[in-house]
Amino acid sequence: MPMTMTQKILAAHAGMDRVEPGQLIEASLDLVLGNDITSPVAINEFEKCGATDVFDREKIALVLDHFAPNKDIKAAQQCKQTRQFADKYDIKNFFDVGKMGIEHALLPEQGLVGPGDAVVGADSHTCTYGALGAFSTGVGSTDMAAAMITGKLWFKIPSAIKVELINKPTGFVCGKDVILHLIGEIGVDGALYQSLEFVGPGVSALSMDDRFTIANMAIEAGAKNGIFPVDEKTMEYCRDRFQREPKVYEADPDAEYTRTVTIDLSALRPTVSMPHLPENTRTIEEVSNVKIDQSVIGSCTNGRISDMRIAAQILKCRKVAKNVRCIVIPATQEVYLQCVREGLAEIFIEAGAVFSTPTCGPCLGGYMGILAEGERAVSTTNRNFVGRMGHVESEVILSSPAVAAASAVTGYLTDPAKL
Amino acid sequence: MPMTMTQKILAAHAGMDRVEPGQLIEASLDLVLGNDITSPVAINEFEKCGATDVFDREKIALVLDHFAPNKDIKAAQQCKQTRQFADKYDIKNFFDVGKMGIEHALLPEQGLVGPGDAVVGADSHTCTYGALGAFSTGVGSTDMAAAMITGKLWFKIPSAIKVELINKPTGFVCGKDVILHLIGEIGVDGALYQSLEFVGPGVSALSMDDRFTIANMAIEAGAKNGIFPVDEKTMEYCRDRFQREPKVYEADPDAEYTRTVTIDLSALRPTVSMPHLPENTRTIEEVSNVKIDQSVIGSCTNGRISDMRIAAQILKCRKVAKNVRCIVIPATQEVYLQCVREGLAEIFIEAGAVFSTPTCGPCLGGYMGILAEGERAVSTTNRNFVGRMGHVESEVILSSPAVAAASAVTGYLTDPAKL
Repeated sequence: MPMTMTQKILAAHAGMDRVEPGQLIEASLDLVLGNDITSPVAINEFEKCGATDVFDREKIALVLDHFAPNKDIKAAQQCKQTRQFADKYDIKNFFDVGKMGIEHALLPEQGLVGPGDAVVGADSHTCTYGALGAFSTGVGSTDMAAAMITGKLWFKIPSAIKVELINKPTGFVCGKDVILHLIGEIGVDGALYQSLEFVGPGVSALSMDDRFTIANMAIEAGAKNGIFPVDEKTMEYCRDRFQREPKVYEADPDAEYTRTVTIDLSALRPTVSMPHLPENTRTIEEVSNVKIDQSVIGSCTNGRISDMRIAAQILKCRKVAKNVRCIVIPATQEVYLQCVREGLAEIFIEAGAVFSTPTCGPCLGGYMGILAEGERAVSTTNRNFVGRMGHVESEVILSSPAVAAASAVTGYLTDPAKL
Repeated sequence: MPMTMTQKILAAHAGMDRVEPGQLIEASLDLVLGNDITSPVAINEFEKCGATDVFDREKIALVLDHFAPNKDIKAAQQCKQTRQFADKYDIKNFFDVGKMGIEHALLPEQGLVGPGDAVVGADSHTCTYGALGAFSTGVGSTDMAAAMITGKLWFKIPSAIKVELINKPTGFVCGKDVILHLIGEIGVDGALYQSLEFVGPGVSALSMDDRFTIANMAIEAGAKNGIFPVDEKTMEYCRDRFQREPKVYEADPDAEYTRTVTIDLSALRPTVSMPHLPENTRTIEEVSNVKIDQSVIGSCTNGRISDMRIAAQILKCRKVAKNVRCIVIPATQEVYLQCVREGLAEIFIEAGAVFSTPTCGPCLGGYMGILAEGERAVSTTNRNFVGRMGHVESEVILSSPAVAAASAVTGYLTDPAKL
């Protein structure tokens, strides 16, 4: 039976020649990830099991990013527990405050994930690394504990949806518009426990940052994972970063997909997801007179250097509107440093924006920009569920960095091309 | 009866020729300040009074700095209430997120306070502006409400302690060492409801930033205010900033002081306040082997550009020690921008420090670096009370930026000269 890209990676990690959808397999893992919220839960489970060591101190990454630098005493206790665990087991890839970034931007940047890997993380957006041609998916903290002990996890082999990308995006259209459009098409449960395999001539028109954004939000369509083929851009990205040998898997030409969705990238428009679901999409032309109180540019979805550059291009020599807070959060210390060196930091501050140290920030209602009752944010983050960014009576509209930056300037949802 | 500098300012603002200690007077105010924590309480009182307008929309400053960018829903509600009040009464000096900074660094920088002013703020470190030869003091939120309505407040005329400064500081000794030394000498209630009037030939050896730091912590000796004479450095600082005409008041040569404390600046050493009171001072030689988990460089006490420069000088080409978090917080957007332009931001990030957007941060247990149980921070902030920066079983040691930066590098309380 022919296999999809995801199926081939899982088969290889299970030591099997072939697998089929629905089959249960046990796969060896190349990396196990946890953050400051999920790791403490996993560590407690790890200890309850009576485990005396981790399976491989080089194949675990612990990243303090959600409520760090510590926002309150609880966050401080969680970071402390994670730090002590990292010390005790000499975890090589422990990223403390100041050495850190948002996990899903940090791990690819640090070369800890790459083509052909099988990765799990106790965070739902672990699917991000599919951009590199890896199988990666979010798991619960108990699974993370088991994975830290054994280096293996059980999976049910997913079936797949083929997402055929054709032509090239134009104007301000970027990866975020592609994934929001897709979720609008298939719905938040449109790919439930399936792989979203992105293929077609349009792939080469997408930057690695675009692909990270797209793979990152595969989970918002319910997908087990999102994955891209490995091409020259992938190999170029990995060249000076990825610490192991890339393994390239290609879907069989006759692999089976339950469905094919074709997206003409040239026909896409800047797209937003209105409250309160990512599937509630509109093109920028379909919304008008939508006032905003806050614009957030950052997160594991859109906090990379290309996101910062497009936001700076729009904010340059402009000012954030009165009574609008614009909060720009580079995803990692490396991105932050690059922003400083390229003059982007100056642009943000001169525009009257907050330019924060790397952190998940307000995305999950953490800090650095929580919404009050009745407030509305446009945000480059990945979820706009009820109360996600603060008060239960607040609203989040998902968008690209270009739309978020343009909207910060006008105070209303704005097409960046019309600024 | 001859008068002190403070007494002269208060007499002038009461329309009186002379006043004496203990006398009750009503003074007109040049500025009334509130922040995101205290303003909502004052606004509630303002509304309870049935007030229909503020006394002068140009003489009120509202600054969102403590828990902003909003750290949680409560903070978001407080900022929203303050923002709506500022809108309703067209408050000229409303500093929202992104246009902001820490109040006591921001107001002098923006030229809103200057020589001869009488200023109250609903924040205990309002005494900072004494550095400019102003009378300024912290009040409760109810007083802030009354002041916003009437532009006046009652005061009891304070007696004064003369602090005679002689010679010049050497090496890494700065304003923070001067004020910690003084508090160590006279105790946290050593100047209860008195003025601390700094005089003598040593004043001219202190930069304006040094004086802001010293005046800022007058309250930590229980003082009603701390105040410096106006000299060339003051006038130079005010030249392109202060929006009104400076009024210079000098103490009468025979003014009465309850006590004179002489400080030989040349004899001072880098000084720290050990847990849990600012008066619990030691010179850096008197402490050894004190391990730290965190170093905080910032706050209304030490978040100005000279503080950033000395921290960067020490952190340049060095790395923050393993398992130590170093959190650097410029006090205002202007200081932040200057740090970026001078290359200080790069130094901090390359050293592995957090470089945050302006905020009060962890100083009052807010966010951006809260301590867990058993953790210890060295910090350039102003209070080291039990639980001030987080868990009740955590500790804060107060120091200068130089000591905090050097300690971040070694992981132990460290004399910057010995790094």
